[in-house]
Parts: sequence; C-alpha cells; structure tokens
Amino acid sequence: MSMPNAAGSAALSGVIPPVCTPLTPDYQVDVASFVRLLDHLLDGGVDGLFVLGSSSEAAYLTDAQRRVVLETVVGHVAGQVPVLAGVIDMTTPRVLEHVRAAVAAGVSGVVATAPFYTRTHPAEIRLHFRTIAAQGGLPVYAYDLPVSVHTKLGAGLLLELAAEGVLAGVKDSSGDDGGMRAVIMGREAPFSVLTGSEVTVDSALWMGADGVVPGLGNVDPHGYVELYRCASRGDWEAARAEQERLVRLFEIVKVGGTRMGGSSSGLGAFKAALHLRGVIDCPITALPQIPLNHDEIGRIGKLLATAGLL
Amino acid sequence: MSMPNAAGSAALSGVIPPVCTPLTPDYQVDVASFVRLLDHLLDGGVDGLFVLGSSSEAAYLTDAQRRVVLETVVGHVAGQVPVLAGVIDMTTPRVLEHVRAAVAAGVSGVVATAPFYTRTHPAEIRLHFRTIAAQGGLPVYAYDLPVSVHTKLGAGLLLELAAEGVLAGVKDSSGDDGGMRAVIMGREAPFSVLTGSEVTVDSALWMGADGVVPGLGNVDPHGYVELYRCASRGDWEAARAEQERLVRLFEIVKVGGTRMGGSSSGLGAFKAALHLRGVIDCPITALPQIPLNHDEIGRIGKLLATAGLL
Amino acid sequence: MSMPNAAGSAALSGVIPPVCTPLTPDYQVDVASFVRLLDHLLDGGVDGLFVLGSSSEAAYLTDAQRRVVLETVVGHVAGQVPVLAGVIDMTTPRVLEHVRAAVAAGVSGVVATAPFYTRTHPAEIRLHFRTIAAQGGLPVYAYDLPVSVHTKLGAGLLLELAAEGVLAGVKDSSGDDGGMRAVIMGREAPFSVLTGSEVTVDSALWMGADGVVPGLGNVDPHGYVELYRCASRGDWEAARAEQERLVRLFEIVKVGGTRMGGSSSGLGAFKAALHLRGVIDCPITALPQIPLNHDEIGRIGKLLATAGLL
Amino acid sequence: MSMPNAAGSAALSGVIPPVCTPLTPDYQVDVASFVRLLDHLLDGGVDGLFVLGSSSEAAYLTDAQRRVVLETVVGHVAGQVPVLAGVIDMTTPRVLEHVRAAVAAGVSGVVATAPFYTRTHPAEIRLHFRTIAAQGGLPVYAYDLPVSVHTKLGAGLLLELAAEGVLAGVKDSSGDDGGMRAVIMGREAPFSVLTGSEVTVDSALWMGADGVVPGLGNVDPHGYVELYRCASRGDWEAARAEQERLVRLFEIVKVGGTRMGGSSSGLGAFKAALHLRGVIDCPITALPQIPLNHDEIGRIGKLLATAGLL
Repeated sequence: MSMPNAAGSAALSGVIPPVCTPLTPDYQVDVASFVRLLDHLLDGGVDGLFVLGSSSEAAYLTDAQRRVVLETVVGHVAGQVPVLAGVIDMTTPRVLEHVRAAVAAGVSGVVATAPFYTRTHPAEIRLHFRTIAAQGGLPVYAYDLPVSVHTKLGAGLLLELAAEGVLAGVKDSSGDDGGMRAVIMGREAPFSVLTGSEVTVDSALWMGADGVVPGLGNVDPHGYVELYRCASRGDWEAARAEQERLVRLFEIVKVGGTRMGGSSSGLGAFKAALHLRGVIDCPITALPQIPLNHDEIGRIGKLLATAGLL
Repeated sequence: MSMPNAAGSAALSGVIPPVCTPLTPDYQVDVASFVRLLDHLLDGGVDGLFVLGSSSEAAYLTDAQRRVVLETVVGHVAGQVPVLAGVIDMTTPRVLEHVRAAVAAGVSGVVATAPFYTRTHPAEIRLHFRTIAAQGGLPVYAYDLPVSVHTKLGAGLLLELAAEGVLAGVKDSSGDDGGMRAVIMGREAPFSVLTGSEVTVDSALWMGADGVVPGLGNVDPHGYVELYRCASRGDWEAARAEQERLVRLFEIVKVGGTRMGGSSSGLGAFKAALHLRGVIDCPITALPQIPLNHDEIGRIGKLLATAGLL
Repeated sequence: MSMPNAAGSAALSGVIPPVCTPLTPDYQVDVASFVRLLDHLLDGGVDGLFVLGSSSEAAYLTDAQRRVVLETVVGHVAGQVPVLAGVIDMTTPRVLEHVRAAVAAGVSGVVATAPFYTRTHPAEIRLHFRTIAAQGGLPVYAYDLPVSVHTKLGAGLLLELAAEGVLAGVKDSSGDDGGMRAVIMGREAPFSVLTGSEVTVDSALWMGADGVVPGLGNVDPHGYVELYRCASRGDWEAARAEQERLVRLFEIVKVGGTRMGGSSSGLGAFKAALHLRGVIDCPITALPQIPLNHDEIGRIGKLLATAGLL
Repeated sequence: MSMPNAAGSAALSGVIPPVCTPLTPDYQVDVASFVRLLDHLLDGGVDGLFVLGSSSEAAYLTDAQRRVVLETVVGHVAGQVPVLAGVIDMTTPRVLEHVRAAVAAGVSGVVATAPFYTRTHPAEIRLHFRTIAAQGGLPVYAYDLPVSVHTKLGAGLLLELAAEGVLAGVKDSSGDDGGMRAVIMGREAPFSVLTGSEVTVDSALWMGADGVVPGLGNVDPHGYVELYRCASRGDWEAARAEQERLVRLFEIVKVGGTRMGGSSSGLGAFKAALHLRGVIDCPITALPQIPLNHDEIGRIGKLLATAGLL
C-alpha cells in the first residue's frame, strides 16, 4: 500500500513501474494498447505508476504525445493508485512547462532530473529543484540517472533538499547502492527512496528502501509485486528467489547487443516482451532507435518462456 | 559573403555568431533588446546569424520563447544574411517539432546535435540526421558539442553523411582541431566546416574551415569580422593579431570561477558585456543559472576596456 | 575460514582487508608499525590479508618498498591466513615483474587490474589476464576498480575467464552490485566474489558474495568479522545493524572534503584512525597526497569515539 | 636548432620525436634496431629525441628495459641533440625512481605526467611537479595526455608552475589547441610548448608553439623536419602542404580499427611502417597489445607508398 507524500503522510512505497508507451506503426501513442498495459500493471498489483520516465521513452515523445499519456493514465487509473509523471527536460524553464501539464492532468507527483546538456553545478541543481518545488505545487521526486544526465546526485545534496521539504523522494537509478544507503540512513523525515535497479531490489529493500521503479516490471509486474510482498512480510529467502528469477529474465535487455544503443536494446526488449505476451499491439520503439530483428525477438521469447511468462 | 547551401551553391561561410537571447527581469524574451543585438551584429558585418544555439540559451528557452526568437529574427533580418536555427532537443521526434517551427518561421537552415540523454549509437545518430534531413526540407548542419551531448561526431560519420547529401555542414565545438581537419581534407563537395572555438579561428581558417560561430562574437562582432577578412585576403599576421586580442577578451568567461557552472559563467559574461556595452537592457540569464555578482561584472568591464570595447 | 583457490578447494572467503602501509616521517615503510597492524588484523579475526592494494598505497610505493611489504607480511603471518598481493601496474610486462616478486615472497595469490594508462580493449584485457595466469603459477584475482582503471570488467568477460580457469575470483570495487550479482549467479565453479565496498557488505553477502575486502577493515577489523559471522550464521538483522554502525564510521573518509583528492582523504583517514587507535606510529601518507590537518584529524577522532573505537 | 632549457638559454624547440622501442620476437629491447632507428631520426634532421614516452611503449617496458633504452640512446646520440626521457608512473615516489635512472644515464630533461590511477587534485598535481623538480636536478617537462592520465593540465596550473621555475615546458597531447594557445600567450619567460598532435603542427607553430613531438615522426622524420623548417622561414603555404601530406599518412593509425585498442592500432602502425621501411627488424608490440594482421600491414604499406615512403 502506498500514498502520495504530503504533510503527515507516509512516504510513497512499493512497486511503481515506469510505464512503457506503446506506439502505433506510424509512431503515434497507441492509446488502446497503453490502456491494456495500465490494466496489466494494475491487475499485477502495483502500488503506483510512473509515466513519462526514461523507460516510457519520454525523451522521444513530443509534448503533444506526453499530454496524451498524462490524460490517458489519469483518466483510466482514476485514483486507484498514485500516478507520478516525469518532467524530463534540459533546464528549469522547460521542466516547469512539463510540470504545468502534469498538474493540469491531475497527477500525484512529478519526477525531475538535474539539468542536463548545460554544464551545471551543485548550486544550480539546488536552485533547479527549489524552483520546481516552489512553482509546482506537487511532491517532487529527484531522478538520479547519471548515465543520461551525466551528474550524480550526492547523498548530501539530496538530504539537504529533503530537510528543506523541497524533495519528497528520489528514484535512484545510479546503481550506487552505497550512496543510496547513505540517503536511507541520513533521512530524518519521510522521504521515499525508490531504487530504479531491476536486479538489486531485494537488497535495496533490505537496506530500507521504500520501493522500486522497475522497467522490467512492465513485463512481469506480478514478479516485482511478489518480491515486494515477500520482503514486506520478512520472508527474505522467498524475496531473493523471486529476485533471482527476475535477474535471469532481465537478460532480455542484452539481446540487442552492440549493434544498437542501450536505449534501443532495453526499451525494445520490454516492448517486444509485452507484444509477445499479448499486452500491446506493436513492439515499435521511437526514432532513432534501432529495432530488434526477428532472431533477437525470438531469443526474448525463449527467455520469457524460461521465466514462465509465455 | 555567404549563402545557404543548396545544389550548385557555395558552402555557408564567414562569421555567423550564435546570437544571445536577452531576457527581461522576469525571464521573458526581451524583444527590443534582441532586435538591438541583431542590429549590433549586422552592423558589425556578420555573414549570417545562428539563433537558438547553446550560446542563445536554447536549452533554457520554452518552445513559446523559441518561437518568439525565430519570428523576431526572420522578420527583422529580412533576408539580409542567412539565418540558421538550432533545433536542440533529446531525440528525433522532438527535434522534428523544432524543425517544423523553424521551417514555418522561414529560416535558411537548421543545426542539430546527435541524440542526447538516451544511450545512443552511431547507427542511431546516422538515422537521426537522415530523418531530419528527409523531413525538414532545409539544409541540416551537425552540431558537434561533446561537452553537452557526450558523443563526439567522428570525421568518418560526418563525411559519410556529407557524401549522402544529408548534412550541409558542421559546427564543430569539440575543440578537436585534428578531427576538424580530417573533415576539411576529406570532403568531396561543398560542406561548410564552421569552428565553434572562439580562440583558434585563425588556425581553423588556415586549415580550410569556412567560417566561425563565435559566442564571443556577440560582444565583439567587428573583431571576428576583421579577423575573417584579414584571413580571406591572406593577411595572416593581421588575422593572428586580431585573434590574440580576442583570446585576451575571452577571459571574461572565466570570471565566474568555480562557484557556478560553465554555462552560467560563459553566458553570463556575454550578457554582462552586452549590457555594459549598452546593447541589451538586462544581463539576466535563465534559471537555474547563477548570476554574476557586482564584483565579477566589474572585472568583465575591465577586460572590455582593455580590449578597447568600452 | 578460507583457503587459496585450487582444484577441488573452496573459494577464498570471509574478511580480507587491504592492509594499509604505515610510513615513517621520511616516507619509508614503517616495518614495526606494519607488524603491529598485521597483529591488529589477525587479532580481529580476519580470514586473509590483501597487501599492495589501492588502500595499501601500492600506487605510491617503489618496487623496493613493495618487496619490504611482501617479505614482512609473509614472514610474520607465516601461513596463519592466506595472503594476497596486489600486482598493480600499467601493462602485462610490468605486472609480470610484480608477480615474480610476489611468487618469490611466497604469497597465496595475486590481484591484478586491467591495463591502464594505455587505451585498451576487451581482447587485450583477456590476453592480459591469460598471460598473468599462465606465467604466474598462482591464483589470479581480477581487481575491478573503474575509478582508477577507467575500464569496467563486465560480467561476461569475468565469467569467460573464470570458466577457462584463468581467474580464481574478483575483487569488485566498482560499486555496481547488479553487475556483481550477474557474476555470482553466472559462475559454474568455485569463483571468489569479494566486494570492495565497505558500506554494502551485508547485501553483497546476501546476494551470495564470498567475502569482503574493506579498507575500513584496517580501522575496525572486529566490526567486519562480526558482520561476516552474523551473516554466515543467518542472523541478517544483526549483520545489518553492524553494517550500519560501520557505514556511520565510514564518514571518516569524507573529512578531507574538497581541498584534496579522494585518495588523500580516504587513505589519510584510515591512517589517522589507526594512529589515534595506537596501532601505527605516524599517520603520514605518501607524496603527493595532501595531509589531513589537526582539525580534520580531530573530527576523525570524534567519529571513532561515536563508533566505540576510542 | 634547440638546446636544453636552463638559466639564460632558449627554450627547447623543433622536431623531437617520441622514439619507438623496437622489440625482438621474444619481447626484449632490440638494441640493434633501436640504434638504426636513432640514426634514421638523426639523419632526418631532428632537433631532439624523446625516449620512454607513450609512443615508446614506456607503459609496457620493465624498469630493466627502460634502462637499456636510456643507456643506449645517451651513448649513441653522444650529445648531438638533447635527449628527453619519460618518467611515466603513477605517483611521485615511483616517478622519482625513474628520474634517478634518467639522471644517472645522462639525459637532458625529463617528461612527467600528473599522477594517475589515484584520485588526484590540482593541489596534489602541483606538489607532484614541485617535488620532481626539486629532487631531479634536470629540466622537467609536463606531459599533458588526458586520454591516458584522465586529468587535463589547465593553462593556469602550467603557467603557475612555469613562473615558479618548476616546469621548463609542456608536451601537449591533449588536442586542446585553445588551451595550448593560452599557455603560449600567457608565458612570461622561455617555456617550451611542444604539441604532441601529428596533424596540427603547422597551426600549433603558427600560434607560437616551439616544436612538435610527433609519434608519426618515427616513420617520416624528414617530413616533420621539412614542415618545421618551412614554418621557421615563414613559408607557411609549404608548411601546410607538407602537413597535409602527413595527415594523409597518419591514416595508418586507424588501420587496426575496432578489433583492438587505440594503443595497439597506433603503435602497431608505427612499428609496421618502420619495419616495411627497413629500419627495424620486427614490428612486434609489447603485450597485451593485439598485433596487426597481414592484411592490415598491407594497407599500411599502401599508405606509405602513397606518401612516397616506399
């Protein structure tokens, strides 16, 4: 169970997948498939939804497409679970535009990275998050993704902004579990620490993380929900066994190999798996991503079968 | 003299400053100041204008603000010189939106980076530029800026896309003059090589570069135009002397030091100098950039005076 | 308990600290202090010792000093526990020299990084480790330390070399626990996975790691031994509590702040703490490291006191 | 003409190739080939020699092999031109060992990088060079090679150490000609600025650089000497033509492609070319470098023929 962060409330927790954005063959948002995906996730028992994150191909969606996503998810979910929205863009003024759209759509919170493309500085990162929090009117979650943003959000900076009330939590996709632990141990009030790593969820929860935002959770939401429930009731052995099954499933993101970028390979795999499982109509990814070929999709099918998902 | 690249035409050449975007104290585009800046540059004798580049704070401007810039520049310049427009965004679909706005405004060409934020690959970079060229209908210039994009555009890739007719040129802000030379020596048809480095323009022209896109050209367009003219008539000694004066002036970008990021320091310095020279009303930079303080602006004033600009 | 890896034997496991190298005020190896440090660690119950690693300042020691370290440790330990020796150098021929010295001294195994300083390639990294294994005659452990080596040893490469019998294990100081888990789950024969991260030992053991090589173990060997014992008997709650105490103690490495490099700050803190605890005579670190000042050492003392170590 | 830097003397200048180290098939220094290579370079008219640099495979040579190189070069050159020696190692104490060996052998100056492998800091880099200068007793040249050292030596730091008399010059292999120009324009006393870039020598000299340390100069010393002489007498057109011929020849370093690291490809090409030109007996490179194959060496032969060198 989880709730949006607010004065006196508990921190957001549980399984909150970054929802893929299915596309039609002509690269428009496939609303019907998207709704089926939302139901697939809700049926899987997820505790929240995170749209317009990196796994959602937010970096590839036009503003109009982002609005379709926001309106569809808020309308369809209708308050069953909290909905977070990514507001990914280069700098504060552009991020604020996305925040306005997210607020207008009625989401529960927004997720923002540090500035990127520009040559930034900790003083600027602080001002960035403070401005977003002051003008947004919604809980703000920091998105720590150095592989994309080329800046690591240090524990000191996060804890400072947490203490100020600027940040309600962090989605930590840095892979630096030592740094994540420093945030967990250093926080003095509810502050959601959500790991973005699909393969170390049991250990993150063990350290005290509140939840997980797993891209692979699109493919197998039941698996992550089961993992989280096992951990919540203290059955860590079962949590680990489930995690290890998911680690093996996560091999699907490597099928694309070196003939394409990591985004193409990872997001392509999630969508191919959702297509093979019958959730979405078309596995296409946005341009300029390289599509997986027939043979690669076949190998993804075998990994799904091994995981008991086909 | 220079002209937009097209079948049978010469490559774009000369001094093409990346035009700063003056802001009002409440962070809106200051159109009156912007028009004065355009006149300042045209009076300086520039051969073209590049709006919505990094020095224009394009990464900080909302789409609406970008449109104001485009419409103002095209309307005011009225064909006196070519106008290039940056279409800086993370991926192909978002870049194409900016291309459409630029085409609608009536610019002469667009300037695009490789994808960023996503984990990209040469095959994806090629597809990115090919798609932009196919759908844009305008000459496309590649913008090589590894400090922001975290990918270096290699000579092989640029020459391949040049040979295909996909790219009309490159703005090389990588600082890798060896790589730039490989492009200059390897091209087999008109292909504009424009250096983005303010401090090695004489040597870039010496190697065969067609022109320069100097952020510092906002502050001292006459200087860069004089440098280019000297080089064009073969008076390399005079070109070097002018370049060395501009190298000393370029110290203004370091005044901000380590208490802010490089964007704040560099763009802040250009705007402070334009304000001190009476060209723009307000030196403010977009959020979350840290403003230069009174003392720092004073030091910029001294450097301007030394360069004979106050 | 642990033993050097060999046919039919168990993998190396437990707590194997990277032993600091105490220096005299004139920068020679302080053998008396080094012997006291070895006793301090053995009394703490460690399962092995790793000399000439990064925490040992191996990068700062001359070959003659390295030999003093090797001879002292092998002579003093006299087979009570396995002794691993770092053979840190830029390339294969230079590493082989260190391997010969280590073999001559009588250590149990060697620890080697990928080539650095040179621009390397996976094919070269494989050849590097194969050559070391073929010529060394001792178990070879890979040292994955991207912050120093600027190459990440991927799970695929490690598992390939493990399957070949080239590598007996890995010291993973990459901080990438997802990658470490892939090695743990992918190995098909005894292959020691040792985490080099001081702050995630409980979770690494939870994932199946065999042991830990903690720099902070110089300061508090009893703590890491207790942590490992708790985990070994399945008392994970107690392991976590001990780990969290050590996380707080690990703050000592940050006391040096931004006025020095991370090596100066971290290694200086370990040595200052060992000096304050009465183990070594002098906290000096090798040149060109910046020494901690009086105030900083005072703050380290307070952190030691909080941890119950003074 | 050039002379070692000393009180009242001119700065070191001209063409100073980083001399390759020929090896026998069993990876020992091939002294006979090395002597032939020295004669090849001296006959080509070079102004100095730089042994034990990166192009010399210094990172791959054992200390004993380095001594063979030092003794051979000093004995054979016998004062005809200055001899600089690289003292490449991770930190100050290890570098000082190499300095002692170089002094004992009788070289004219030493070339040192910033510390690497360790996590360093400008204050440590300053202390590093100051210690080397104080203890070495020979002119010290800084070696700026970020691709290997992962630190860029800024103009401010270099000028500070130049003003102190710590550094006699810099070998700039950073590719950052803007930064190099800042050093050239900022120096207030003789301070040798030597570019390490093979493909921008004419422009570096144009900016005021004193000389060049070209790896490709092993293959074609006459070419670089001709380039330098043309520039020295002010015939820049001829200098550029010669440079452009050498740029085309430099394509040999790319023949190895992506199946090996850049060191293997570049150093392998220099040695293959020297072998094809009959200067050295065996083109082998040190382990773990991947050797060029028959086909690749054939392509190098064609590039040599095109350059008029076969």
